[in-house]
Amino acid sequence: MTTRWQVCASRPVDYAVIQAPQLFARDNPLLAEFGRGAGSRRFVVVDDAVQRLYGQRIRAWFQAHGIDARLVPFVGGEDNKTVYAWRALARQLENFPIHRRDEPILAIGGGVLTDVVAFLAATHRRGVPHIKIPTTLMGYVDAAIGIKCGVNFEGAKNRLGAFEPPLAVLLDAGFLASLPMRHLRNGMGEIVKLAVIRDAALFRALEVAGADSLATRFATAAGQHLLDTAVEGMLQELTPNLYEDELARKVDFGHTFSYGLEALHADRLLHGEAVLLDVLVSVAVASGRGLLPAGAAHRVFALVDALGLAPDIGLLSGEAMWAAVQDRILHRNGRQRIPMPTAIGECTFVDDIHPAELASAIPFLRARFQERHERTVEC
Amino acid sequence: MTTRWQVCASRPVDYAVIQAPQLFARDNPLLAEFGRGAGSRRFVVVDDAVQRLYGQRIRAWFQAHGIDARLVPFVGGEDNKTVYAWRALARQLENFPIHRRDEPILAIGGGVLTDVVAFLAATHRRGVPHIKIPTTLMGYVDAAIGIKCGVNFEGAKNRLGAFEPPLAVLLDAGFLASLPMRHLRNGMGEIVKLAVIRDAALFRALEVAGADSLATRFATAAGQHLLDTAVEGMLQELTPNLYEDELARKVDFGHTFSYGLEALHADRLLHGEAVLLDVLVSVAVASGRGLLPAGAAHRVFALVDALGLAPDIGLLSGEAMWAAVQDRILHRNGRQRIPMPTAIGECTFVDDIHPAELASAIPFLRARFQERHERTVEC
Repeated sequence: MTTRWQVCASRPVDYAVIQAPQLFARDNPLLAEFGRGAGSRRFVVVDDAVQRLYGQRIRAWFQAHGIDARLVPFVGGEDNKTVYAWRALARQLENFPIHRRDEPILAIGGGVLTDVVAFLAATHRRGVPHIKIPTTLMGYVDAAIGIKCGVNFEGAKNRLGAFEPPLAVLLDAGFLASLPMRHLRNGMGEIVKLAVIRDAALFRALEVAGADSLATRFATAAGQHLLDTAVEGMLQELTPNLYEDELARKVDFGHTFSYGLEALHADRLLHGEAVLLDVLVSVAVASGRGLLPAGAAHRVFALVDALGLAPDIGLLSGEAMWAAVQDRILHRNGRQRIPMPTAIGECTFVDDIHPAELASAIPFLRARFQERHERTVEC
Repeated sequence: MTTRWQVCASRPVDYAVIQAPQLFARDNPLLAEFGRGAGSRRFVVVDDAVQRLYGQRIRAWFQAHGIDARLVPFVGGEDNKTVYAWRALARQLENFPIHRRDEPILAIGGGVLTDVVAFLAATHRRGVPHIKIPTTLMGYVDAAIGIKCGVNFEGAKNRLGAFEPPLAVLLDAGFLASLPMRHLRNGMGEIVKLAVIRDAALFRALEVAGADSLATRFATAAGQHLLDTAVEGMLQELTPNLYEDELARKVDFGHTFSYGLEALHADRLLHGEAVLLDVLVSVAVASGRGLLPAGAAHRVFALVDALGLAPDIGLLSGEAMWAAVQDRILHRNGRQRIPMPTAIGECTFVDDIHPAELASAIPFLRARFQERHERTVEC
């Protein structure tokens, strides 16, 4: 007879994702709802470029609210998504100590910044609250609204990290006004991913208003509607499977082969650009297998053209994509579980992708995109 | 009107702490209950000294069960509870990849080892399962049975870490047979802590059978009963407050002033030795305030003598202890929340400890312990 104790508990998750225009307007009280107010402190990590553009405005907000904020600049980009960057922030936090519960850490920046800062919050004293304020389209519709955080390690994306629910996510689309066009297109890669794999209505909205929304930086009603639909769809997918108990995830669409491409071309591909390449490869493979009707594949390609996303097909590598599949098999516990579209907004999961299929998608996509691109250039 | 989404979910925790004598006896099937069996892999981090003594036996068990185990030696001790040690293990894990869900990482060793390895498991791919097998008394009754993990950072204990529930904790008291006596006494510091602050019955059991249990390395029925009572008491405290939502925690007894002493004397104090010093200071302060009757204080001191714990009172420093209080105030969100005994097995929490009280406890304890110690040495 063996003594055996069972430890049973449950940890509740409850956070808000809030549309927050003019978040740092001096009289906007929203941010003050989270954490202790006047006389308290905030450790605020801000994207370097964002600080140059909005630093004064951000400082003024904290001053107006009597909160002692330490603004810590951070240079974004995958290069800085490292153990070193996390440790450097942890060291700065030691020198600006905060209370464990009511002085949340703030992360103001793109997906890399919010991922690293959320990992800092997850690990400092085994977890202190944090608030994410995305300033890129990638952050707004994808990186900042979920609970995944972490850093790259040994050439593997997000290898060290945590699931850490934020205290809140505050979405101020005003930051998109100053975002470089390449980064707007980068975020559009994730929106296209979501539309193709789960949301035919979002896909149609992109066909109708996507290009104009990019051009106007989502400042129109149609642009805001696109953002809201993308956020809503992402949260619908994430919420019932927040800790990835189910390993077959629609939102992993675009996140299988892309891992190898990002590792291979760290200096040339943004995350959303790699995701878009993966989406195109997946569409080509699904079409080649007869899973996806040719008409649907053509609609995806046409949308990518219409949005001016100009994928760099020359960066595709069958070898790198196949290597990424091997790691994803470990990550998905022994099976490929690759989402493949079966119609616009519908999908299935497959476990039997072959390297030859990946290789043959490359010339197909080259013919479809590079030739068109060259024709466009010639015009 | 602002759009606002609420993300609500709940993460269940459910793990077993199991008395597991003869865990690595070749025909013991217990460990095989956790994770996939024949043909699977295990990343097994083993205390260096434990590997020398039990490595062959451990290897033989995995061979007999057809599991490909990579035994990774790790040198324990607070010196190795670092970001570097965690990163080095993470690198080795990259070279012995495991499936994300059904190939749990094993941690076989003392409290430092299980804390670091659990942090590795918490952060690798945002969390993979792990099993803790403590080989020290400290691990058995304290470090291994909860969900806290992490590393020291910038001179602060456990500053970077996580709450990571294990898949299981397997308690094989057989490892205590080869544990150096100093480490047995070290673990006894935590048992005394628990007895004083919440468990008068455990305190009486220590008075009756504590010294003999140390001498026989807990191999008697009375020794096993002490272990079971300590584990049971610790789990009763931890389970309803697993994530420390309540910051006033009885099990923080002995864990306020000790942080400063451990930092100051990293090379001379084991964790349980520092905890015992904190317990004695707390008893002296509580007694000095009239919170704790003098008779109860004397019983604590007499028990410490009877167990031969020989606290090194010369290591006490009022300054270091007061500095630790400052950090604990941050950790306990703005208040001291220091547990203080009011009787054997009863306590209250105080917020108004003064540096002078800490300072005056030192000569009091010196008189009580060093003089006695010197008399003992002279005999």
